[in-house]
Amino acid sequence: MAATLLDPAQIAELPQRLPAWRLQDGRLCRDLRFADFSEAFGFMARVALAAEALGHHPDWSNVWNRVSIALETHDLGGLSTLDLQLAERIDALA
Amino acid sequence: MAATLLDPAQIAELPQRLPAWRLQDGRLCRDLRFADFSEAFGFMARVALAAEALGHHPDWSNVWNRVSIALETHDLGGLSTLDLQLAERIDALA
Amino acid sequence: MAATLLDPAQIAELPQRLPAWRLQDGRLCRDLRFADFSEAFGFMARVALAAEALGHHPDWSNVWNRVSIALETHDLGGLSTLDLQLAERIDALA
Amino acid sequence: MAATLLDPAQIAELPQRLPAWRLQDGRLCRDLRFADFSEAFGFMARVALAAEALGHHPDWSNVWNRVSIALETHDLGGLSTLDLQLAERIDALA
Repeated sequence: MAATLLDPAQIAELPQRLPAWRLQDGRLCRDLRFADFSEAFGFMARVALAAEALGHHPDWSNVWNRVSIALETHDLGGLSTLDLQLAERIDALA
Repeated sequence: MAATLLDPAQIAELPQRLPAWRLQDGRLCRDLRFADFSEAFGFMARVALAAEALGHHPDWSNVWNRVSIALETHDLGGLSTLDLQLAERIDALA
Repeated sequence: MAATLLDPAQIAELPQRLPAWRLQDGRLCRDLRFADFSEAFGFMARVALAAEALGHHPDWSNVWNRVSIALETHDLGGLSTLDLQLAERIDALA
Repeated sequence: MAATLLDPAQIAELPQRLPAWRLQDGRLCRDLRFADFSEAFGFMARVALAAEALGHHPDWSNVWNRVSIALETHDLGGLSTLDLQLAERIDALA
């Protein structure tokens, strides 16, 4: 599961492939809103499982019913295939 | 939030009030099945939050996508209003 | 458990009462570092339980082994007794 | 990470290799006790992460501050290398 940096063509496809995410400062970002803290934290627990299974973890924050996620691959200095995989898993949970 | 034991009339109403639960050995029991471990654990995290907020915790087990819950109030030696409250919160999450 | 805003004397005592926290932009802030994501998320699960039990939730973020927490009481427009309580519970878990 | 069944020599070594576990009905079993529900659930969240990362999940139960874990590899009909790995990860968290 070696991660590789996305090439310019893959970057250009992101808006279509991941319509719920935006590119911001070179990171993939998504904001989510839930009914309450319980629903938000249940989602966070599932994202944590997905991240640990991938060996790739989000930069994320939570305030009550809101969760903000930013993805990048620090080791490679940009967006990689791991960010794509984690974003798709998160979309499946949202 | 002092818990009180359910009286016989309240016990008799349980099948109507909590149709997803069964009475077994004096405990309220419910079995749930999810898509996978992630969905099961996301649910468990939310039940844990509800239990801690109530100060009343389940006897429960998990095997991959299955969760089994049994409720009783050990301190009072039977089913109490806290079991009703926790069962209803769990139903709202399931 | 009605929250009340901290008065100036209580604010002045914060550095002694909560030495692991700093006041920043009117919020109580603490940064924590763990061995890895697993240890960080285990801590977050326990903070989530404490927050839900108090009915008072943190503004917090996580990047792998780091967790940053900021506390304030939005409804009251400042720091309240609930922030003190949550900070002390978090200190007991850290 | 293909799991293979433990051979009789590996089974015979289990008491030395995993002294905190017992063999019962062909399963590896360990009971743990914590200070309270919060500590127990924080541990469970970490075991959940380890299990999801391994793709191998425990049979486990919890009552307030107690957690009981049983490991076996259903697909292979016995104890496998995955059970060893999960038991060792759990020991590192306990």
